Amino acid sequence: MYSSKLQAQLGKLGIDIGDRIKVLTQSGDFEGLLMPRPHYGDPDILVIKLSTGYNVGVRASSFELIEKAPPRKKRELPDESPGKDGHISILGCGGTIASRIEYTTGAVYPSISASELKLSFPALKRWQIHSKQIFSLFSEDMNATHWKMLAEALEGEIAGGASGIVVMHGTDTMTYTSAAISFMIQNTPVPIVFVGAQRSSDRPSSENEMNILNSAFTASKDLAEVAVCMHASTNDDFCYVHRGTRVRKMHTSRRDAFHSIDSNPLAAVDYRSDMFNTLSPYRKRGESGDMKVSKTVNDNVALVYVHPNIKPSLISKLSDYDGVVLIGTGLGHVPTNAFGDKTVRSIYEPVKGLIESGIPVVMSSQCINGRICMRVYTNGRLLMDAGVIGDDADWTPETAYAKLCYALGQTKDMKKVQEIMMTNITGEISPRSATQIV
Amino acid sequence: MYSSKLQAQLGKLGIDIGDRIKVLTQSGDFEGLLMPRPHYGDPDILVIKLSTGYNVGVRASSFELIEKAPPRKKRELPDESPGKDGHISILGCGGTIASRIEYTTGAVYPSISASELKLSFPALKRWQIHSKQIFSLFSEDMNATHWKMLAEALEGEIAGGASGIVVMHGTDTMTYTSAAISFMIQNTPVPIVFVGAQRSSDRPSSENEMNILNSAFTASKDLAEVAVCMHASTNDDFCYVHRGTRVRKMHTSRRDAFHSIDSNPLAAVDYRSDMFNTLSPYRKRGESGDMKVSKTVNDNVALVYVHPNIKPSLISKLSDYDGVVLIGTGLGHVPTNAFGDKTVRSIYEPVKGLIESGIPVVMSSQCINGRICMRVYTNGRLLMDAGVIGDDADWTPETAYAKLCYALGQTKDMKKVQEIMMTNITGEISPRSATQIV
Repeated sequence: MYSSKLQAQLGKLGIDIGDRIKVLTQSGDFEGLLMPRPHYGDPDILVIKLSTGYNVGVRASSFELIEKAPPRKKRELPDESPGKDGHISILGCGGTIASRIEYTTGAVYPSISASELKLSFPALKRWQIHSKQIFSLFSEDMNATHWKMLAEALEGEIAGGASGIVVMHGTDTMTYTSAAISFMIQNTPVPIVFVGAQRSSDRPSSENEMNILNSAFTASKDLAEVAVCMHASTNDDFCYVHRGTRVRKMHTSRRDAFHSIDSNPLAAVDYRSDMFNTLSPYRKRGESGDMKVSKTVNDNVALVYVHPNIKPSLISKLSDYDGVVLIGTGLGHVPTNAFGDKTVRSIYEPVKGLIESGIPVVMSSQCINGRICMRVYTNGRLLMDAGVIGDDADWTPETAYAKLCYALGQTKDMKKVQEIMMTNITGEISPRSATQIV
Repeated sequence: MYSSKLQAQLGKLGIDIGDRIKVLTQSGDFEGLLMPRPHYGDPDILVIKLSTGYNVGVRASSFELIEKAPPRKKRELPDESPGKDGHISILGCGGTIASRIEYTTGAVYPSISASELKLSFPALKRWQIHSKQIFSLFSEDMNATHWKMLAEALEGEIAGGASGIVVMHGTDTMTYTSAAISFMIQNTPVPIVFVGAQRSSDRPSSENEMNILNSAFTASKDLAEVAVCMHASTNDDFCYVHRGTRVRKMHTSRRDAFHSIDSNPLAAVDYRSDMFNTLSPYRKRGESGDMKVSKTVNDNVALVYVHPNIKPSLISKLSDYDGVVLIGTGLGHVPTNAFGDKTVRSIYEPVKGLIESGIPVVMSSQCINGRICMRVYTNGRLLMDAGVIGDDADWTPETAYAKLCYALGQTKDMKKVQEIMMTNITGEISPRSATQIV
């Protein structure tokens, strides 16, 4: 809410939030949409969204004139039969893509109703859109509780006959969630496509529109997998569709931040030109395998970065966890002091101790790319002997983490956990190629 | 040692380890160098290094004939004046590059004496080589004790008049060490060039030779920085020289695993064609700034990966550390629950608690690439308000970690730590470009 003085002034002129207004000031004239007051904003500064996409703040005391402006001509909708391309469910989880004025103050206003979505993105008219807000969070605030809520909602949409599902999600932890859902909903009969935005929708560079349209487009295709659809380049020319277990956010801010790891994306897509170019084989609608839904995941799992100076006590203090994923160095190493050097501080004993007490320990690598291979060096062989899981896997740390949460949701039997972990469920472990990697 | 029976047999024939031998067996004849028994090897299996570079194991009971073979013709040395290109110190820290038969058993035999190096790599003859073994470890076993030993040795070599220094180092934690040394030895008057190998030298694909020659070549150039010299591609055609604070191992096994992050490499180099192509500006020999050596670093620093389900107790248990580096999500986030959702498990309070108790907390990002920017979203702003250090830095998690160890070696005053951390010392924080990133 703006200040009561400003509210009164706006009320007298019949101006509501969202109306197009014109303000004359000594520093210039501004025309644009009146935005709500940002969460931490000054109540005496009006925020106006200009046609450039930028917001401007105008202090009430500097107005010379304020008036309601005529609405701009409506955008021509493409001449297509509404709903001709099937029906798509859009589930909202929050994040930048769902925000209307995520400005530097941090205020988020998710707008996700079907009518609002269609208003914002007229090209969605090609599909019958059903939308539902599951929750609205910054994705870094999400945890296994939200994975479960989302899995439930997805199951519901599939049961309700959705021919494809788009999940609007914050980008920070999107690939943890896409990996978790890949294990929780196996053999999905319809596309489940995660989408986000790196820039909020009030920035000129926001890629919301292309991402959301391309994700709906992908959700109407024959892909029966959990996937992530995001900008492929910094031009707004196309998106990549990545496998949900094989993708990672690799830049803090670029629009093309999402990359397939140790694999090609599944497809390059552009709804405008009906482009859906397959880049890797994927599971298709109607392929064999019944859908298997598991909404039990174990959230008592630690993800630990191995580094020089790491203390044995850091590991031994994990004894109250049900599982641990290590992000080791190189091929999957930790300090083990295989050669008994007195200057080395090893964590081999506490790692072994965790495993002996029944806590599975899984290896991944901070190199991000490449396969875990603990057989090459003595340090690694010691870890394998101790029972560390993951030799030969080429998963990302995030996918290894989500998979262990899933596995420990199914069983606490160490042997069964190991079996689940080392079985390729949904493309997260790729077969070793003929070429030796070491 | 091989079995006493085998030893006796070899002794009678006058065969020593390293001799060229010929063995006839029913499965074929093998000629090559007799290798020492691998650490965990069967004492009755002779290991022979074939001319292909591969090792073969031959069981004593299967010999039909064993004899000493004539030595192969010596490799022609390039016709150059020995030592004409200055004098280079080569310091050994262990790792794959220093191993002679690092085979699947894990046995490592570092060979680092000057004469051995010159024998292995005749092109080194261009320089006067002085070599010294500092220690010999798998690099994942290294810690701040080894950083100090290395800094001391480097200081000694510089004082002793080395015109350039090569550091042979394991690849797993090489970039932690190169970052640490970048802070511990500032304004080095001569090149300090780290080098390693992704494949051990008994593999045909070992890149030891090209890496070590290119690192010596780089050490004789005008670069007065701490750098890393490693394969640029999977062809043996050239190496990249990376800034020591700006490089990361990005693949578990590929030869071209090392990449400059958020920057170009400093140079592309090939000793065979005298190529030294500058790709980024670098500090040159003779540039202003006296060398500043600090051998005190604080190793009581944790490096913590932020992830969904992370428990507040994981953070609060860090109260016995002197500093913490977080590897946050996206622009530098952790679960803070800025909007008070009851399903969110926040770590904001324990992070704030650490800072209030005088423990500096520094932010980096698991995206690896891109700048930390905590000003954009409410979650990030909360962290900044709590005093988390790192807004606007574009450092890697490893460089942030090494820098905090260094800073806490200089002072425990929180304000001074913050000042050191946010001052660009050696290219680890690059100036923000004109283009806004959010």
